[in-house]
Amino acid sequence: MNVYLAGPDVFLPDAVEIGRIKADLCGRYGFKGLFPLDNQIDPSSGDASLQIFRGNEAMMDRADVIVANLTPFRGPSADAGTVYELGYMAGRSKLCLGYSNDPASYADRVARIAEIEKRADGQMVDNGGLTVENFDQIDNLMIVHALEMHGYPIVKPQRAPSDIWHDLSSFEACLRLLAEHKIEGRALRLGR
Amino acid sequence: MNVYLAGPDVFLPDAVEIGRIKADLCGRYGFKGLFPLDNQIDPSSGDASLQIFRGNEAMMDRADVIVANLTPFRGPSADAGTVYELGYMAGRSKLCLGYSNDPASYADRVARIAEIEKRADGQMVDNGGLTVENFDQIDNLMIVHALEMHGYPIVKPQRAPSDIWHDLSSFEACLRLLAEHKIEGRALRLGR
Repeated sequence: MNVYLAGPDVFLPDAVEIGRIKADLCGRYGFKGLFPLDNQIDPSSGDASLQIFRGNEAMMDRADVIVANLTPFRGPSADAGTVYELGYMAGRSKLCLGYSNDPASYADRVARIAEIEKRADGQMVDNGGLTVENFDQIDNLMIVHALEMHGYPIVKPQRAPSDIWHDLSSFEACLRLLAEHKIEGRALRLGR
Repeated sequence: MNVYLAGPDVFLPDAVEIGRIKADLCGRYGFKGLFPLDNQIDPSSGDASLQIFRGNEAMMDRADVIVANLTPFRGPSADAGTVYELGYMAGRSKLCLGYSNDPASYADRVARIAEIEKRADGQMVDNGGLTVENFDQIDNLMIVHALEMHGYPIVKPQRAPSDIWHDLSSFEACLRLLAEHKIEGRALRLGR
C-alpha cells in the first residue's frame, strides 16, 4: 500500500528529515510512504510552484491511502494545502486517515484568536458576527466526517504533546489502524 | 449545469439570503445554483453535523461545477470546509472555479498575524520557524493550481471591496467565465 504523507510538515525547518522518519515508520508497518518533498523540482525553472502541484497530484494518484497531519496551522483549522489534498483523495475514493496533535475543539481554537459570544438560541458567533461551528469537533465538520465516511475517525492525543510538530505518536496510531485495516481486508477476501 | 456554491457564506448572519442571491444570479446565467443550506437538516436529531456533511456531499455529487468563495477566513487561508470541497470536486473531475475578495498575496496575509523573516537564501519563515510559501500567489499553491488545472484561474478584484462578505462582483465574474465555457464547449461539440 502506498501512503501519501500530507501535512504542513513540509514547512518545518527539518522537513526532509521528518519525511524520512515518517517514510521509515511506514516501512516498519509494511507500507510505502510517499512524501511530497521526494518529488524532483527544478527551482530555477520559473514554475517551481506548478511543478510541486503536479508532483503532489501525481503522487496522490499513485497512492492508495492518505494520512493527513491536520494539526492546526496559522489559525484554528488545519493547513489549507493538506485539507485540499484530503478532499482530493476522498473525491478519488481513496482511504482517508488523519490526525491532529491539538485535541482542542474548534470553538476553543477560535476563542484563541477571536472573542466568541454565545447567544440565547445557543449559537456561537465571533466578533465579526460569523457563526462558529459548535459540534464539539476539532475542526470544520467536512474534515471530521470525511475521515469517518471515507476512512477512519481522526486520531488525536488526550493532551497536546509538548512538541506538536515533531511528536509522531498519533501519526503512528494511524499506521496501526491502517495495518489492522489491511489484515481485516485480507480476512474478508479469504471469506472469513 | 448544476453549480455547487461553496464558501464560508454559510457562516454569515444573513447566510440564507446570500444563498438565495447567489442562486438567483446563477439562474440569470442559465445555471442551477446548489447552496448547502438548501439541504433539509433535522436539528433535533443529534447528528445534525453528519447530516450536513452527507447533504453537502450528495449535493457535490449532483453538481457539475464548484464555484468556491476562497476569501480568507479566520487566518491567511480560505475556509477549511470550502477547501475540502474544492479538493473533493477536483478529485471527482468536476470543473473548478473560485474567487477571493481579498487579493493580497499569501505572504502578505501571513504578515498580518505573524512576524516574517526573509533569510539570506530568499526563503521566508514565520516567527515559529515555519516556511511561508512565497510564490506571489494568494493562497497555498495546491488551491491556486488546482483551479488552473481543473478549471479556471482564481478570480480576484484589483482591490478588496469594502464589504468582503457581501460583494458578489468576483462571484459573478466566475459565472461569466462559466457561461463562456459552456458556449465554447457547445461550439466544440458542433465541430467548430
